Amino acid sequence: MTSIPAPTGASVNRQWRLAARPQGLPVATDWSFSSEPVPEPTGDECLVRVLHISLDPAMRGWMNEGKSYIRPVAIGEVMRAGGAGKVIASKHPGFGVGDDVAGNFGVQQYAISDGKGVRKVDTRFAPLTTYLGALGMPGMTAYFGLLDIGKPKAGETVVVSGAAGAVGSVVGQIAKIKGCRVIGIAGGADKCRYLTEKLHFDGAIDYKSEDVKAALKIHAPDGIHVYFDNVGGEILEAALGRIALHARIVICGAISQYNNTVPVKGPANYLSLLVNRASMTGMVVFDFADRYEDAAREMGRWISEGKLIAKEDVVAGGIDAFPETLLKLFKGENFGKLVLAL
Amino acid sequence: MTSIPAPTGASVNRQWRLAARPQGLPVATDWSFSSEPVPEPTGDECLVRVLHISLDPAMRGWMNEGKSYIRPVAIGEVMRAGGAGKVIASKHPGFGVGDDVAGNFGVQQYAISDGKGVRKVDTRFAPLTTYLGALGMPGMTAYFGLLDIGKPKAGETVVVSGAAGAVGSVVGQIAKIKGCRVIGIAGGADKCRYLTEKLHFDGAIDYKSEDVKAALKIHAPDGIHVYFDNVGGEILEAALGRIALHARIVICGAISQYNNTVPVKGPANYLSLLVNRASMTGMVVFDFADRYEDAAREMGRWISEGKLIAKEDVVAGGIDAFPETLLKLFKGENFGKLVLAL
Repeated sequence: MTSIPAPTGASVNRQWRLAARPQGLPVATDWSFSSEPVPEPTGDECLVRVLHISLDPAMRGWMNEGKSYIRPVAIGEVMRAGGAGKVIASKHPGFGVGDDVAGNFGVQQYAISDGKGVRKVDTRFAPLTTYLGALGMPGMTAYFGLLDIGKPKAGETVVVSGAAGAVGSVVGQIAKIKGCRVIGIAGGADKCRYLTEKLHFDGAIDYKSEDVKAALKIHAPDGIHVYFDNVGGEILEAALGRIALHARIVICGAISQYNNTVPVKGPANYLSLLVNRASMTGMVVFDFADRYEDAAREMGRWISEGKLIAKEDVVAGGIDAFPETLLKLFKGENFGKLVLAL
Repeated sequence: MTSIPAPTGASVNRQWRLAARPQGLPVATDWSFSSEPVPEPTGDECLVRVLHISLDPAMRGWMNEGKSYIRPVAIGEVMRAGGAGKVIASKHPGFGVGDDVAGNFGVQQYAISDGKGVRKVDTRFAPLTTYLGALGMPGMTAYFGLLDIGKPKAGETVVVSGAAGAVGSVVGQIAKIKGCRVIGIAGGADKCRYLTEKLHFDGAIDYKSEDVKAALKIHAPDGIHVYFDNVGGEILEAALGRIALHARIVICGAISQYNNTVPVKGPANYLSLLVNRASMTGMVVFDFADRYEDAAREMGRWISEGKLIAKEDVVAGGIDAFPETLLKLFKGENFGKLVLAL
């Protein structure tokens, strides 16, 4: 086994564990903070020092009991999270000390890994945090959700909600690359300005200050051909009310509903699908795992060509700040991909 | 112009016109009964004596104001309806006196037609009423909705609601022909028995006496691969809760919601689409018009081979009985394709 020295005071691995299943927004008592000795790799394992933790809306779903596309995090278990870091000790033939890696490392400072689902990343090419955003799961979600499910054609109108977030901002930019008219829905004037001025969206709707339904009428006068939904609720309904014939709705998430304590509100106007011969299709990025590398290569090229801007919102709070940093997602406070730096 | 004598007392064409836009179920004051002289064909027209009027759930939608897949029936206009009858006078080069025809003739005893959307039918092959059912729009809806949108594969589980109705009964039978396990949802023990005993469905759920959610768990233990929805509401929700990975939901109608005076209830568990990477797609049969003949030929063969049973529920009430006969649809009283004999 090769290894490099752990940083000073790093004999301890600090972790956030799920203590209770939240009702609504996660609160302090839903978490427990634990410390254990930094583990040593055995067998074919490697030890990763986690440098950045990815904060994703999907995490809220993983905290719930019940059948879903992935098993729930168990009570007492280290919270599941994507992360990026450096291999600091390895018995794994595929990973060497010093390798920059991204994978599911959990909300902790150090992670033992058998290499499954871990990929080496090239930090000369893009900063480590980008591998949690545009070149990570959110980017893959945007890429496959838009292109494989939404199937936009040049000249069509694409509307995306959560447009200033990790997935939405990439969806809109890819749609622009593909020659579509792109309208983003986001919360706040700053985000909206960012979408049109920096990401070159054709329009932006501030759901906090505008009537989304009325605004969509103006921004999508010929209807919406592809609606990429990250938020659900009233915004999904507003979009359904404006779809064009044969529209494709991509159901990627429903962040407005994840912390509901009352039943989710289904789209009352779902019969717009019938009238418009339209479809609404759910997607989970994991299904596209065998094509991640191809997508990352293409998106990497777009980044290097300046066609795709990867923006991360890095919170420098350290592991202690995890619970309150997660909440920024649900309050719509993040601007780009939300990352916690350890 | 050739013509055959009109039946005794047939100098008058009696008609039902839309008098007001219904709130909820159509009531007597929503209709007006009118009489006018039987018209004579001019130009390239023909005159059809209507023998059977088709009663379809979609008619309720046509009575509403607002944008849909077809323009609303105007106040004062003869109510739109499919029908079948005989050409009794013709100046149209394509239709001769004595031809049996089906088309959009409206709720009236005689209709002038320019031939658009009218097809000649062969009553040696199947009774006239079948051309309003299995070999008419409901049959086409079932055929294209199931095969083109639902895309069932042999061995998959197909669930259909409104299963004893004009569309649902054909959907289930085609799914059986294609080698699927078929579960029908219908109202009442008689209908359910008919589905399993006469139409050879693998199972039937009586929504009036059973908990549909619990029953689906028993009948579709491995989940639903194709759900063909004619009813919406709670039954759609129950089905969404049991879909299999990559399931296809065909949205054909939502009869439970057509007479709502409160807003339509959207499916609260639509995120099941995401978890299961499933799709929900609306369909309107008119989009498949250029393939009607092929479908009718194939379904005709199935009928002649005894693989497809066409059942019509013919009400012998005459034109007077139209308003109350229509209500049978919304009360779930029809058994097979509902037809009014004039």
